[in-house]
Amino acid sequence: MNGLQSITKTTLMGPGPSCVHPEVYKALAMPTIGHLDPRFINIMDEIKVMLRQVMGTKNEITLPMSGTGSAGMEAAFVNLVERGDKVLVLVNGVFGKRMAEVARRLGADVEECEFTWGTPVDPDRAAEKIREKKWQIVAIVHAETSTGVRNPVELIGPMVRESGALYIVDAVTSLGGIPVEVDAIGADLCYSGTQKCLSCPPGLAPLTIGERAIAKLKNRQTKVPNWYLDLSMIMDYWQGAKRAYHHTAPINMLYGLHAALSVLLDEGLPKAYERHRRMHEQLVKGLTSIGLELPVAEAYRLPMLNAVTVPEGVDEGAVRKALLETYDIEIGAGLGPLAGKIWRIGLMGYTAQEANVERVVRALQEILKR
Amino acid sequence: MNGLQSITKTTLMGPGPSCVHPEVYKALAMPTIGHLDPRFINIMDEIKVMLRQVMGTKNEITLPMSGTGSAGMEAAFVNLVERGDKVLVLVNGVFGKRMAEVARRLGADVEECEFTWGTPVDPDRAAEKIREKKWQIVAIVHAETSTGVRNPVELIGPMVRESGALYIVDAVTSLGGIPVEVDAIGADLCYSGTQKCLSCPPGLAPLTIGERAIAKLKNRQTKVPNWYLDLSMIMDYWQGAKRAYHHTAPINMLYGLHAALSVLLDEGLPKAYERHRRMHEQLVKGLTSIGLELPVAEAYRLPMLNAVTVPEGVDEGAVRKALLETYDIEIGAGLGPLAGKIWRIGLMGYTAQEANVERVVRALQEILKR
Repeated sequence: MNGLQSITKTTLMGPGPSCVHPEVYKALAMPTIGHLDPRFINIMDEIKVMLRQVMGTKNEITLPMSGTGSAGMEAAFVNLVERGDKVLVLVNGVFGKRMAEVARRLGADVEECEFTWGTPVDPDRAAEKIREKKWQIVAIVHAETSTGVRNPVELIGPMVRESGALYIVDAVTSLGGIPVEVDAIGADLCYSGTQKCLSCPPGLAPLTIGERAIAKLKNRQTKVPNWYLDLSMIMDYWQGAKRAYHHTAPINMLYGLHAALSVLLDEGLPKAYERHRRMHEQLVKGLTSIGLELPVAEAYRLPMLNAVTVPEGVDEGAVRKALLETYDIEIGAGLGPLAGKIWRIGLMGYTAQEANVERVVRALQEILKR
Repeated sequence: MNGLQSITKTTLMGPGPSCVHPEVYKALAMPTIGHLDPRFINIMDEIKVMLRQVMGTKNEITLPMSGTGSAGMEAAFVNLVERGDKVLVLVNGVFGKRMAEVARRLGADVEECEFTWGTPVDPDRAAEKIREKKWQIVAIVHAETSTGVRNPVELIGPMVRESGALYIVDAVTSLGGIPVEVDAIGADLCYSGTQKCLSCPPGLAPLTIGERAIAKLKNRQTKVPNWYLDLSMIMDYWQGAKRAYHHTAPINMLYGLHAALSVLLDEGLPKAYERHRRMHEQLVKGLTSIGLELPVAEAYRLPMLNAVTVPEGVDEGAVRKALLETYDIEIGAGLGPLAGKIWRIGLMGYTAQEANVERVVRALQEILKR
């Protein structure tokens, strides 16, 4: 079977995966060692230290779960939800909807407070809803990948804290591209993915859990109904002197994440955020110059995920196909109700470079004027 | 952080991860492309074709789950168990115990039928137990990694079929090292891991599900209480014309699995099994020649996982430490009640080579005579 021979370097400007840093590729191919090898334990410890910096937290339990970003979401809810818990999800896109669905399947009593897709969660309406009843959990997506909207997680956090609920924040797309200050915003559990602004392939879900959430986990009436993602056991493998075996860690993916975090911290978080912002501004300028429009209001646009309105009469799929086949550039389609209406242009991690911005604008210009 | 610099080529002769084939390392570092890219869809299709061959099945739904082998176990039970289902687990080691625990957490009414660890599941006692009541699911581990015992899955299969229950088989350690004939043994769901006899790093769980199990899945009273591992959605991403996005696939790990399956099928399954058998015989001969004993009766020994009795008065941890530090060889310790009593020497996949067998025997001899 020769499918691997078809792989060529592709500029990944969709909603993730993003372009992978060369150091990460190198790390992925390093020799596999054992998951209980002292050298590997040391690599795990370094990953924890670096993840804490990137996630803006002092939480001891800050580690990558062995699955993609969606496994992070699953882990967040399955560890903290008990049957019948009242869960409020502030929804303004596909990934907020997914949070609600994940929680519902676990037997939570879920309410979705929905905001117009393409606009941010409104803090005033959210405040009202949060005060409405005694919620056990309030959840929100920081960077809604389906619409390109940044939600005001820093405004919602204090309200949730005051209410006594636990606060779950999805930082899959935001982490590494805009500040994710877990402790400052008061998130009790926050998860992400490796394939966005961390410039690493998909496969791991960085996650951090604070003391209040750990207390709930430890005082559960029933065991976590998911052995694989049970944080109370996973933390025994990731901390302490004993390092009790739970499941075999995805060694080489963890090498990749280690390298990705090193690259990000070597650049420096403020510089990385600034680079994402500059590339976003350059992209907006370029797209506008060729007559394309961005549907999201300027103040709430994500730098790393840009929704672009498909012009009237344009076959959006044909444009993406031409981009991929002729220019080796991948951009994303709209999801759910936005399918056919928007493109999603990602500027995530290693993708966020001037040359890539120039190329995608030029390519779109050439294709659209045909 | 320089933890990655400590990594050196290590001969992995424990219970997994095993040595990774050079072609697999190369594949891991190939450029990441999108999870909806037509070239990637083609790679997925090829993986399915190859996995069917390796697993001995015609099941259309034969695919890798996005997690390690334990995620395969979780997926097996979470998709097929509904609350209150009667589940019988035939237990003779840590991984049978784990199956029971996974099912219990999902609300199943679980009974463990336990057999002495280090001996195989006895088909007669199993038959009695299977006939005892109306089970919805009967589960067994093919190759019990904690003891090195091969269970007679081919004898249990027809009994389970006759009883009307679904038959779940754990082939984490067996796949690629001894025949795993899913269709022939009548398994309704079988899962494995990449880090054993497939010579690939940990991170994926090959899984196959047959028509009877799919029927149960489709007729569930409640949705699968695990969005991430819900096979009814995952199969829509892995088959058909539409390829509906579910979660972002772990692209580079899938490159690795593709390469690993190609290597295995290029060698040929019968040859690979024969190689595992020969290396096992050579190892037994070598160990016996230096006075070491294997606790498992010859007829039920796994070629790829060899339990070795720790001689009286020997500090088993010190021996493993010396092996790793002086000889760059990793072997495994005993798990659970066997901790301190046995070593586990793996001959899995690319590890199963004459030079490795010779090295580990010589190294053990040198260390033990100190």
